[in-house]
Amino acid sequence: MSTEILTYDKVNITGGFWREKQELIRKTTIWNVYRRFSDTGRFSAFKMDWKEGMPNKPHYFWDSDVAKWLESVAYLTKKQREPELEAIVDEVVDDIERAQTEDGYFNIFFQLFMPEKRFTIRGWHELYCAGHLIEAAIAYDEATGKRKFLDLMLKYAALIKRIFMDEQSAAFDSPGHEEIELALVKLYDYTKDRQWLDLALFFINKRGLKEKLPEGDDYTRGTNVQDHLPVREQFTAEGHAVRACYLYCAMADLALRENDEGLRNACEKIFSDIVNSKMYITGAVGSTHVAEAFEDAYRLPNDTAYGETCAALSLALFARRMERIEPDSRYADTVERVIYNGFLAGLSLDGKSFFYENAQEIDLENRAIVRSSLHNNKNMHFPITQRIEVFGCSCCPPNVTRFISSIGDFIYNYTDDTIYVNQYMESEAALGDVKLVQTTNYPFDGKVSLKLSGGAKKLALRVPGWCRVWTLVKNGAPVAAEVVKGYALIDAADGDEIVLDMRIAPRFVRADSRVRADRGLEAICLGPFVMCLEGVDNGGSLASVVLRRNLTVGFDDSLGLPCVYADAARETTDSLYSDTVVSTPFTAKLIPYFAFANRGETDMKIWNVVR
Amino acid sequence: MSTEILTYDKVNITGGFWREKQELIRKTTIWNVYRRFSDTGRFSAFKMDWKEGMPNKPHYFWDSDVAKWLESVAYLTKKQREPELEAIVDEVVDDIERAQTEDGYFNIFFQLFMPEKRFTIRGWHELYCAGHLIEAAIAYDEATGKRKFLDLMLKYAALIKRIFMDEQSAAFDSPGHEEIELALVKLYDYTKDRQWLDLALFFINKRGLKEKLPEGDDYTRGTNVQDHLPVREQFTAEGHAVRACYLYCAMADLALRENDEGLRNACEKIFSDIVNSKMYITGAVGSTHVAEAFEDAYRLPNDTAYGETCAALSLALFARRMERIEPDSRYADTVERVIYNGFLAGLSLDGKSFFYENAQEIDLENRAIVRSSLHNNKNMHFPITQRIEVFGCSCCPPNVTRFISSIGDFIYNYTDDTIYVNQYMESEAALGDVKLVQTTNYPFDGKVSLKLSGGAKKLALRVPGWCRVWTLVKNGAPVAAEVVKGYALIDAADGDEIVLDMRIAPRFVRADSRVRADRGLEAICLGPFVMCLEGVDNGGSLASVVLRRNLTVGFDDSLGLPCVYADAARETTDSLYSDTVVSTPFTAKLIPYFAFANRGETDMKIWNVVR
Repeated sequence: MSTEILTYDKVNITGGFWREKQELIRKTTIWNVYRRFSDTGRFSAFKMDWKEGMPNKPHYFWDSDVAKWLESVAYLTKKQREPELEAIVDEVVDDIERAQTEDGYFNIFFQLFMPEKRFTIRGWHELYCAGHLIEAAIAYDEATGKRKFLDLMLKYAALIKRIFMDEQSAAFDSPGHEEIELALVKLYDYTKDRQWLDLALFFINKRGLKEKLPEGDDYTRGTNVQDHLPVREQFTAEGHAVRACYLYCAMADLALRENDEGLRNACEKIFSDIVNSKMYITGAVGSTHVAEAFEDAYRLPNDTAYGETCAALSLALFARRMERIEPDSRYADTVERVIYNGFLAGLSLDGKSFFYENAQEIDLENRAIVRSSLHNNKNMHFPITQRIEVFGCSCCPPNVTRFISSIGDFIYNYTDDTIYVNQYMESEAALGDVKLVQTTNYPFDGKVSLKLSGGAKKLALRVPGWCRVWTLVKNGAPVAAEVVKGYALIDAADGDEIVLDMRIAPRFVRADSRVRADRGLEAICLGPFVMCLEGVDNGGSLASVVLRRNLTVGFDDSLGLPCVYADAARETTDSLYSDTVVSTPFTAKLIPYFAFANRGETDMKIWNVVR
Repeated sequence: MSTEILTYDKVNITGGFWREKQELIRKTTIWNVYRRFSDTGRFSAFKMDWKEGMPNKPHYFWDSDVAKWLESVAYLTKKQREPELEAIVDEVVDDIERAQTEDGYFNIFFQLFMPEKRFTIRGWHELYCAGHLIEAAIAYDEATGKRKFLDLMLKYAALIKRIFMDEQSAAFDSPGHEEIELALVKLYDYTKDRQWLDLALFFINKRGLKEKLPEGDDYTRGTNVQDHLPVREQFTAEGHAVRACYLYCAMADLALRENDEGLRNACEKIFSDIVNSKMYITGAVGSTHVAEAFEDAYRLPNDTAYGETCAALSLALFARRMERIEPDSRYADTVERVIYNGFLAGLSLDGKSFFYENAQEIDLENRAIVRSSLHNNKNMHFPITQRIEVFGCSCCPPNVTRFISSIGDFIYNYTDDTIYVNQYMESEAALGDVKLVQTTNYPFDGKVSLKLSGGAKKLALRVPGWCRVWTLVKNGAPVAAEVVKGYALIDAADGDEIVLDMRIAPRFVRADSRVRADRGLEAICLGPFVMCLEGVDNGGSLASVVLRRNLTVGFDDSLGLPCVYADAARETTDSLYSDTVVSTPFTAKLIPYFAFANRGETDMKIWNVVR
């Protein structure tokens, strides 16, 4: 079943949790990223006047860092004009125009340092940069009506199509870092020009055929870059998690638009592989720093977790595309798991700093032991414990700004007769011939009011996978509803108000027993939030903390977030192995995982011993 | 405090658990190892007639494999002559006599392949082989009075002393694989010739000074071979676990004999480091296959545990030496932990086959996932699941035979006025001027009778660290006893019978919460036995098995061993993370860990979820 493609611009987030985040991006984050990118030469690099000996030598992925920032500005300005930000975008676009070659090429690194090598080095993110610039250009045209950026990128896309597809004269035939495929689908959606869909299909179809094997660079072969098999024969999530999910996004996009059964089948199997065996409870994916990759099924170590912010974000993008193919709530459940946990942890509460890797546990004593050990444990990599403002590889910060600025995109899809309500966010939406006003304090509260106007529709309200008790009220009267694939179905006509009330109570969650890292442990969740203990609230080291089963919900005023209190104890044995245990009771406090590491370096733990 | 050095020959194991094992060695194992060593050319290598193109090219550690077998024969024949085995030893000794050079050198590998390179390659086990030959020669002389072997080795030892210590003309100044140091102390004890103690001290004192750094072979530098610091500055157990513990044995030997405070201090700290942070519950040590080494403190993964049989054995040898320095029951507790668990697992119940690595867990489904995964998990090494008869590196089998044949050595030490009873084994012992008869079915039963004759002594009976309830009866009447450092003290005169009765009940044991691999899990122990579940008794895969707290003790007639039954369930979640759990109750059976893997390849688990 295919549904209308609804973009963020048809939905306005009007209040609540995500409105606050969007305002934070607009007021603080977008500017902070701009300053850090300016400091590090990323904006001036577009002037193409860098010379040897100058600081801030441009890197081969800088085009994409700035492109995502430009795209973020487009999403912000679409909702409320931002002349200062627009002026910066316009200047970058002018720089691109000046630098672009006669035939349409644009890439800072290759043009500055090795113009003769363009389209010959698969590993150096050339098409990845192009893809992000294309996405930014579409968004900016859509938001402002200023067409120049898009025209420049259409010229570049035409060059890429000629070299890769028409002439097949490039040294490789599919990108080393996927991204352009999904950008080309967007370009097709926006322009309705079929050639871009064909080019996306071309890249997808060449992948894994190994017709042009890159030389020398082992990293851009095989599973690392999802090049081990033709894409329709790939049924498991493999390799670099961001590349992988961007590829799967494009595969899902093409499955929908081309009604391609092979792609749909591969996407479904890969999605199941991820959510059934390769995803942290927070929605973080890519568990190892080695190649930033998906590891073996069920291998989800907490202390050394990698979980790149961009990877979580890209899983949400993939899930969003899958729910357009089939309205099954497991897709929106995954989006929800990601956006309230593994993705959102990437941004500090003050909106100024970021995680690239997202710790799933911090055990400072264990780290100190490993670091001071004489045993050379070369394979041990721990994620950083504190967010920072800019990274050498700074893909995540502008990805966070563009994602949150366009998060309204995730709320709905609709067909001629049904509106699927996938996410609960206070908002107004124009959905075809009807308007839907959503009023809610979700996820702090489980009550959601939906007011329909302008026509009659079937509403399909997602009942979250975590929700055990819920009620549905229509115009003040309780109603029963059939639940199909996780969606409660109810008819609504002009003027109807539907209220879904989901009971949010803390619950103990276990992992599949094949997840060895979580065996015998339990996590506490509250609505969509995965909760965690932090040392700062719980007396320092958390290694010896044991929870009891008595939980109460509270609110942390300083964080502005719900919290959970648990009867707990520190339990220590009198020797390495013993049945003699000393137990010191205390009340443990848990906060939403995404808010960890906002109060200094301290232990953090999601998975608990519960005795 | 120093105690008399009591060797195995003053104690006869007369019945019970260890008598059965000793008979198994005598009847089966010693012959089986002989046949496999013959098949693989280890015995014929001593003929020194191997030529290129022949099968079974001699390896540089074969001398030591056979030497430990020779030593085993000496221990067996001391108790009951074994003419057939002695004839084999005599032939090997004749071979050595023929091959030994004019100046006393003997080493199969170097003499065959690179005689000019002798004493120049630190990594190739030359002095390790010499040490084992010296130990065998002492044991054989002591057991049979045939002196030739010892004379040959005295000549070799004199050469080693001249080259290494007097002339200092060797290319290295301490061995790459320790062993000869403890052998030289034995040679001193046996001959009372001070020069061997001096040579042992020389090797110990040169270690870590880095005066002669070996070239080329990185493996024999630094922590791997305990060469990172002077030995008196080493306070943590580092590197290759067998090398390490053999070194620590010699350090403890020299601390005792030389009253060397620096060595004693280092030994105490190292011992504490091992038993407080680097030892499995079974007494296995050396948790990683990488360099067969001690890892970071508390890093004791179960699924990838290495735990070489020789390493467990050498920890017992080290602990035995420490209890001679200071009568503290933690040393004998460690010996007990090792001999009933991590060491004994090395030998099959039928006495024919061996583990080199000793699995601490077998999770076949997890192994299958890792092996079939497209993700290249290069760092994952799993121990074998079934014992085999001979290994390419077959140090463990003859180490098992010599250890069990001389296990009586571990029971007692004594001073002028006190006899320390460290281990409980049915036996008779001549201890200075008194005789002690120990009658017990330990560890199947906790009752031990000790009958003294010939004089008055203070008896110091170890109260095992695991034992919570025990009583002491003297000549039929209950008595109270002071407990000092884990030993219950009681006076006994000629004709007295002391009965110690220890309650053996199954108990749940936890690990220090810093042991991340065991966090939230519990082991079940029964007396000195660590118990385990095997798939063959419990329906296959053990990943989802959860135990309850209700345990009963039984007996497995086919294994001839006690077992424990536990109320249990298989508990599975309905998705990767869920609070919906399906629970299927059953009765789980646990057997002593050392007896695992005697009934085909199957899952095995020591550490359990207990809910």
